[in-house]
Amino acid sequence: MESIKDKVAIIGMGCTKFGERWDAGLDDLAIEAAYEAYEDAGIGPNDIQACWYGSVTQPMVGIGCTHLAGPLKLHGIPMTRVENWCTTGHEALRNACFGVACGMYDMVLALGVEKLKDTGFPGLGAGRGMSPVLEARRTAPGSFGMIATRYFYAYGLSPQEGKRVIGKIAVKNHHNGTLNPKAQFGITIADWMKKRVASAEKKGKPIPTWKDEWDFLHDDRANPMIAWPLRLFDCSPITDGAAAVLLVAEEIAHNFTGSPIHIIGSGQASDYALHDRKDLTSIGAARLAGQSAYEMAGVKPDQIQLAEVHDCFTIAEIVAIEDLGFFKPGEGHRMAEEGVTALNGSRPINSSGGLKSKGHPVGASGVGQSVEIWKQMRGEAGERQVPGDLSLALTHNVGATGQTCVVHIYERRA
Amino acid sequence: MESIKDKVAIIGMGCTKFGERWDAGLDDLAIEAAYEAYEDAGIGPNDIQACWYGSVTQPMVGIGCTHLAGPLKLHGIPMTRVENWCTTGHEALRNACFGVACGMYDMVLALGVEKLKDTGFPGLGAGRGMSPVLEARRTAPGSFGMIATRYFYAYGLSPQEGKRVIGKIAVKNHHNGTLNPKAQFGITIADWMKKRVASAEKKGKPIPTWKDEWDFLHDDRANPMIAWPLRLFDCSPITDGAAAVLLVAEEIAHNFTGSPIHIIGSGQASDYALHDRKDLTSIGAARLAGQSAYEMAGVKPDQIQLAEVHDCFTIAEIVAIEDLGFFKPGEGHRMAEEGVTALNGSRPINSSGGLKSKGHPVGASGVGQSVEIWKQMRGEAGERQVPGDLSLALTHNVGATGQTCVVHIYERRA
Repeated sequence: MESIKDKVAIIGMGCTKFGERWDAGLDDLAIEAAYEAYEDAGIGPNDIQACWYGSVTQPMVGIGCTHLAGPLKLHGIPMTRVENWCTTGHEALRNACFGVACGMYDMVLALGVEKLKDTGFPGLGAGRGMSPVLEARRTAPGSFGMIATRYFYAYGLSPQEGKRVIGKIAVKNHHNGTLNPKAQFGITIADWMKKRVASAEKKGKPIPTWKDEWDFLHDDRANPMIAWPLRLFDCSPITDGAAAVLLVAEEIAHNFTGSPIHIIGSGQASDYALHDRKDLTSIGAARLAGQSAYEMAGVKPDQIQLAEVHDCFTIAEIVAIEDLGFFKPGEGHRMAEEGVTALNGSRPINSSGGLKSKGHPVGASGVGQSVEIWKQMRGEAGERQVPGDLSLALTHNVGATGQTCVVHIYERRA
Repeated sequence: MESIKDKVAIIGMGCTKFGERWDAGLDDLAIEAAYEAYEDAGIGPNDIQACWYGSVTQPMVGIGCTHLAGPLKLHGIPMTRVENWCTTGHEALRNACFGVACGMYDMVLALGVEKLKDTGFPGLGAGRGMSPVLEARRTAPGSFGMIATRYFYAYGLSPQEGKRVIGKIAVKNHHNGTLNPKAQFGITIADWMKKRVASAEKKGKPIPTWKDEWDFLHDDRANPMIAWPLRLFDCSPITDGAAAVLLVAEEIAHNFTGSPIHIIGSGQASDYALHDRKDLTSIGAARLAGQSAYEMAGVKPDQIQLAEVHDCFTIAEIVAIEDLGFFKPGEGHRMAEEGVTALNGSRPINSSGGLKSKGHPVGASGVGQSVEIWKQMRGEAGERQVPGDLSLALTHNVGATGQTCVVHIYERRA
């Protein structure tokens, strides 16, 4: 069967600084990301023929998709909003790929934007879940807490062991984030601890006596429980941000850059809400989406050299690297502990810092993952650059508690 | 340039009864529409490879896109939500076309669903407009009221003449709606008047002395002012409903039906918010979307035999038939008055009853327009069947106050 393979290439990307962007509104974020992508590709807004825009919350606070046509100078062209909870960014990218691959457009923009701070957005917690009947009454940390508990039980990890394993993910991703100037948290957990000590000293308060970052992570006051067994440092933050991808028809890619990246695999799948699933140690939609993407790309999991996966909670990264076939079920946690997924490991995961440390501006998070792949594959990732020639990489973007997942596979050709 | 032309065909459609569906929830509506489409094409949910789902409001009340995978038995396959205010339905259809045309999928479902009654939906009025700065403070009737006032002024219609012209649209579309069993209002305005008289008699209240439907429409109590010059009967209603389209790759269409309909033109465009436009007598996005669709289809406006246009307010139908090039600017109102756009006229518009009488379940409205084209082109429109062989038809779906528009052109081949 035909697909989008060999029809679509990426020629430029842009990404705002992620974080609490009190300095920027929705328009500012969109402009910042889109214009960085334009500059990257050496084009301008007049070259864009269509735009797919991903945002989860903006229309909920009264801002329609076409509003951005103004600040982005895109009036006249088709602008389409795509939304699918936290997979929104990769839905925008995927539908933009279809628009190019079917021959309708030669150059399009896929944009993810989310402005959560000071917009009046009412939140995505309880009452706004996936199923109006059951899941609406459970928050995201509550759902992923269930996944963690079940994972620990299934693979014989004591609560203490489980806590250490997910803590490892937090420590790794915070470390990677310090090397990423766009990350929300440019600070390691050890430094966070030192900051807390310094602050206590300055205020003349009792000085905490944490031995190291592990002691800090185990302290109920430093790292409070959110939803058992997930603590504060197991959760991704509330983030403002935007990211942009410029896609063109394969045959014109080399008019713009000597080193385009090719999207050779794209998979998406949906699944039941959490309470209707047979197994909580795996996200079925991620397995299916991965299979579709691998099949289309004609590659196997062990050929993927670098991946950005959806670590909305620390446990989600462990489940993701098993769902994607990088490691066998029940082995992900051991690989994380052994440093295999670290920046200098044999299978680096979330070199950007991930959602955990780079930030999670919902509709922009997925596009932000692609930006990291783009930087890494072109050797432009600075201090966090993964060594060696990267020819195959992957992004994994999960929505809700796994009701949807999009996987993309990227190729750089010599 | 390549396009989706000759790549996509429709093999089945379904539509719920539109109206105040106190009997049905979101799931019921989706099932009703999708299963009618399945039956129409002789297929089942297992044959569907991907689904594009259009809804404006459901996620605002906490119901995610993939929730519908359950009731529709579509688990596992990609389900993507598309949203663009009132063009949402045709955005779903358009993106589904891209998914088929690029070769990713052979058979897909495009679904529009909106459940507005008893869902806790907070409304789309003031405070939820298109631009957070200005347009949010104006309601939809207020915006289309400005368009009407300006149209009357530009073409020298007195307020009395203007009122008669837009009343003509209401009378025509209510008439067409009586011939459509799926319409929300299966009643002419004359009969509505008689009902009001009968009700007054029954309750022993003073009996109104309306001479005819025109007298009724001019009565401030019978037809109260909503936003000058638009009165109650100039506005489309709040509607629950769903509609579904089954799309397949062109080459397999004849495996399912002897008379598929082909989508040969698709155009979308965005525009400034109302307060930033140079001209209020025309919707620029509709002109651009129409041009793109005509160009792709290789047809001219006068070849289109039947059209469903976005009559969210009566004035919008007059502007639409000019924007689409059916009539010159300023001539639409005269054509409406002369009956050219009536069911038995030479250019029937909104044979279904339109949004005005069939109903306006926002995200489902556009897909509902396609359902009418499907029925008419296959000679299955019953009492409202337009005579003669219909080989070319069009749908026109506007979002916000014209910030976006999608136009599709359909062909039936002998």
